Amino acid sequence: MSTAENPVRAALAAFVAERDWARFHTPENLAKSIAIEAGELLECFQWNADAEAERVCDELADVLTYAYLLADRLGRTPEELVLTKLELTRAKYPVERARGRSEKHDRLPE
Amino acid sequence: MSTAENPVRAALAAFVAERDWARFHTPENLAKSIAIEAGELLECFQWNADAEAERVCDELADVLTYAYLLADRLGRTPEELVLTKLELTRAKYPVERARGRSEKHDRLPE
Amino acid sequence: MSTAENPVRAALAAFVAERDWARFHTPENLAKSIAIEAGELLECFQWNADAEAERVCDELADVLTYAYLLADRLGRTPEELVLTKLELTRAKYPVERARGRSEKHDRLPE
Amino acid sequence: MSTAENPVRAALAAFVAERDWARFHTPENLAKSIAIEAGELLECFQWNADAEAERVCDELADVLTYAYLLADRLGRTPEELVLTKLELTRAKYPVERARGRSEKHDRLPE
Repeated sequence: MSTAENPVRAALAAFVAERDWARFHTPENLAKSIAIEAGELLECFQWNADAEAERVCDELADVLTYAYLLADRLGRTPEELVLTKLELTRAKYPVERARGRSEKHDRLPE
Repeated sequence: MSTAENPVRAALAAFVAERDWARFHTPENLAKSIAIEAGELLECFQWNADAEAERVCDELADVLTYAYLLADRLGRTPEELVLTKLELTRAKYPVERARGRSEKHDRLPE
Repeated sequence: MSTAENPVRAALAAFVAERDWARFHTPENLAKSIAIEAGELLECFQWNADAEAERVCDELADVLTYAYLLADRLGRTPEELVLTKLELTRAKYPVERARGRSEKHDRLPE
Repeated sequence: MSTAENPVRAALAAFVAERDWARFHTPENLAKSIAIEAGELLECFQWNADAEAERVCDELADVLTYAYLLADRLGRTPEELVLTKLELTRAKYPVERARGRSEKHDRLPE
């Protein structure tokens, strides 16, 4: 689905257009923004593993918003990016070797 | 759309289940993972504003993948998180005050 | 101690000068570099709280290196930055209110 | 210089001890804290390359503070970490190949 056809991405695009903010949304600035928001998300878990769900949702929403805007700038949909990468990851982590293990692919047992 | 009905999230859920990886995917670990991948995305732009599109897509896909998994852990869809936050942001950044400006809402001119 | 008098900072400055790398070390690029290296440091702890000490030292060294270079660009020493901030933090977290608590200052009990 | 002999690290250690905060300062929590503060530092440069120097100093101080605390937890000084890594980096980036170039060592011309 292109941006025009997806209601969430269409709402984001309209929001940005009304404010004339596309000028700020270079790929580099969006990448910085994703890292900044990822830090705020991580802050929910700074001193312990539990966090208030509403706060986590709020910060995750910011990460997703900038990630959607960057995908759009690259002319890709989030869905195709995730699925394309999933195929690569599937090949790197075969079920029989990776099952129940958290090591990186180059450290998995043969 | 619930995870079961969304083909991308269903593919991710199956990928994780086959590898028995849900045990590693606590909200805290997923938040760390998003921050780690956000750093790798930022690395595409470390020394200049231009970056190879394929590499950016690849790193953005990792951010999105962990963000989708965290949304799922929270029982929310990425779409509803983005739209809920967009309503809040709309209220904080009215068009007439925010148009063409990159300041934070509390620094915008009245 | 100014950079010239501090052996670590003098070694870093010489390393950069020999390679003609100061041109890349704008404050913005150094801030990005710190965030990138902080992500690599965090990766040591991605799936569990234990990490190999040597790997942690290696990644922490990268964070420190870019942090020292940024302090230098700002004409400040790391020591004075840390001490100045410590005074502010001391005022925000009085011993009697903050003892044994991890909340942010605005959530501490009176 | 050990922590006891270095005035900045001694001040930090006293600050933490008075508040009984060492219990929160696991290596993992400190690594998260460094990433969180690195995000706040990056926020100074979110939409443009210029940033207010005082704000940058303030955020950089937070990164340095947690980095110093982590070094201390690892039984190392920031100085030795930086110098040890510098030797490794020197070997990876010989002056004649790296001069004036920002590529990673494995992409430098022979």
